[in-house]
Amino acid sequence: MLQFKILKQDANSSARLGQLTLTHGTIDTPVFMPVGTQATVKTLTPEDLYEMDIKIILSNTYHLYLRPGENLIDKAGGLHSFMNWQNNILTDSGGFQIFSLSKLRKITDEGVYFNSHIDGSKHFLTPEKVMEVEQKLGADIAMCFDECAPYPCTYEEAETAVKRTTQWARRCKEVHCRHDQALFGIIQGNVFPDLRQRSAKDLVEMDFPGYAIGGLSVGESKEEMYHMLDLTHTLLPLDKPRYLMGVGTPEDLLEGVRRGVDMFDCVLPTRLARHGTAYTRRGKITVRNAAFAEDFSPIDTDCNCYVCNHYSRAYIRHLLKAGEILALRLLSYHNVYFLAKLMENIRKAIQEEDFSGYYNRFMEYYQI
Amino acid sequence: MLQFKILKQDANSSARLGQLTLTHGTIDTPVFMPVGTQATVKTLTPEDLYEMDIKIILSNTYHLYLRPGENLIDKAGGLHSFMNWQNNILTDSGGFQIFSLSKLRKITDEGVYFNSHIDGSKHFLTPEKVMEVEQKLGADIAMCFDECAPYPCTYEEAETAVKRTTQWARRCKEVHCRHDQALFGIIQGNVFPDLRQRSAKDLVEMDFPGYAIGGLSVGESKEEMYHMLDLTHTLLPLDKPRYLMGVGTPEDLLEGVRRGVDMFDCVLPTRLARHGTAYTRRGKITVRNAAFAEDFSPIDTDCNCYVCNHYSRAYIRHLLKAGEILALRLLSYHNVYFLAKLMENIRKAIQEEDFSGYYNRFMEYYQI
Repeated sequence: MLQFKILKQDANSSARLGQLTLTHGTIDTPVFMPVGTQATVKTLTPEDLYEMDIKIILSNTYHLYLRPGENLIDKAGGLHSFMNWQNNILTDSGGFQIFSLSKLRKITDEGVYFNSHIDGSKHFLTPEKVMEVEQKLGADIAMCFDECAPYPCTYEEAETAVKRTTQWARRCKEVHCRHDQALFGIIQGNVFPDLRQRSAKDLVEMDFPGYAIGGLSVGESKEEMYHMLDLTHTLLPLDKPRYLMGVGTPEDLLEGVRRGVDMFDCVLPTRLARHGTAYTRRGKITVRNAAFAEDFSPIDTDCNCYVCNHYSRAYIRHLLKAGEILALRLLSYHNVYFLAKLMENIRKAIQEEDFSGYYNRFMEYYQI
Repeated sequence: MLQFKILKQDANSSARLGQLTLTHGTIDTPVFMPVGTQATVKTLTPEDLYEMDIKIILSNTYHLYLRPGENLIDKAGGLHSFMNWQNNILTDSGGFQIFSLSKLRKITDEGVYFNSHIDGSKHFLTPEKVMEVEQKLGADIAMCFDECAPYPCTYEEAETAVKRTTQWARRCKEVHCRHDQALFGIIQGNVFPDLRQRSAKDLVEMDFPGYAIGGLSVGESKEEMYHMLDLTHTLLPLDKPRYLMGVGTPEDLLEGVRRGVDMFDCVLPTRLARHGTAYTRRGKITVRNAAFAEDFSPIDTDCNCYVCNHYSRAYIRHLLKAGEILALRLLSYHNVYFLAKLMENIRKAIQEEDFSGYYNRFMEYYQI
């Protein structure tokens, strides 16, 4: 099931405030979805995420299909039950991961042959098989199987990917039958405006309950990405949720919202944490740096999260230097909270008809 | 400060129920102290430990002296403040770690020359310096600097270590001046009864508020260890707390309590967790084993901890196989809870005059 209501439209940009209701509850949009690739948002428990008011996470079909396998998760009662997560889940389709992680892949109109990045084993995924896997995982939103062309690529490569993505979306829709799971289409087209147009037109004709913008943030310039977002905004029905895949940084979240995007996901907050980097209101800091050795202030003095309320930069730096796992846990918590809070502030600003003001104030202080 | 009250003495063994009051609150004894070597009980937050009703943890002077250094922790307001822990802390003296971890050590009556296991840097620790470090760390209980002879060793080696431990204890007591910190003496003597006797006699004459039994669980047989515990029990004043250092396993906790021990510490629960092993009421299990791949029951059906209430063996096994940090966090939580609960059950049994019954029931089911 899926219901989407737009509560407020910003007057000066395409930003909008909405409510997305799925099988496991209602989500205020725009929303950032933390990534739980392997059925866990790295280092964190569901309770940690509930504390931050996270209503939806993303999990990766490619990873779960390979390990532990969709059948095991099905036996556990589905992904929610397996990982003890009571709010919503979106599963991607594995398309992007096959192209970015796996080896020896061969693409045909039928599907994709590839070798597992874990053990080299051979696999063949078709739109029908991906639907079987995603329905067994049982997320609240499933994504159609797509072909994500690399950047840079030729027009012909991007065109082939668009055509296949359309054919595959049709086949996905044909076999998808879980009523408690919404199926989103994915728009491809790389950085070619007419291909984006064609992809959006094809998918909108199929009438999906939501649309993802795929194949961005893969190496193209910010200008190219923003241009594609501006374009896509005009191509999608206003009353359907739009999801920008794999984005992003605080500044890209703001830029995306400004261009009408309702949903985002990205591994950055937890990945940066594992590299000892933390978001702050003034930009990222490398907590491991010697400059913080005797800094007894919190990661971010403007932050009210559990970590910033209890621990100093000096302590977390010590944990990092000593190789202590708690450092990664604390930084992951803070970074996910930081983005959740950013989205909350964005929603509040739209509600209060001050999105442009918030955007300007944020960008003024935040060092990219 | 330190107050110790014995509330109940078991009729059939030396087990006793007590209350130990330190600067940061009262502890029911017998008690197991989780180890936070580097100012963190690995993977866990203080809140995790409060949830399990942990009233005291141990931290390692050797590690903290080397990194981040006692002066940094002093500047942070002491170890409690640095690591955000509001209950009690005991710091060991580093004696054991110097002998087990560091390299190129040379022992004189004055102190110990050694090279850091982290960067090879040269250090010289004396009883006076160790007292300075421990007082800066500011734990509720500090341990005297001792020499821990290896196992096996000659009588002469053990005798030298006992003599030095006595001299060093005197020097520690001489310079120790924090009134909010209790200083314990450490009894050495390896597995030589007359040396244990001499060491205990020397230290008891100095009238410490508590005594540790050191140099056990270092390679000797269980029989030798239990024999030394039986002997030491007769040598120490009944009204002072006794702490068996570096022990241990569930069965050794029971054997120690039976022999009059009030306090224990051991890295095992968190170390086993990091190797994918969990305690259960019927013995340890290796969660990574294929046998648990589709086992949707909790780690321990008899356990009521957060982990056993929410996660299956199959899920935790998946996390372990996938290299996810959450696995280590969940297993650490369960294992520490398991020992905390074991001690709670032991205290309840002594209170209800059923310690022998509890001992027998536990040993009947628990596969060592």
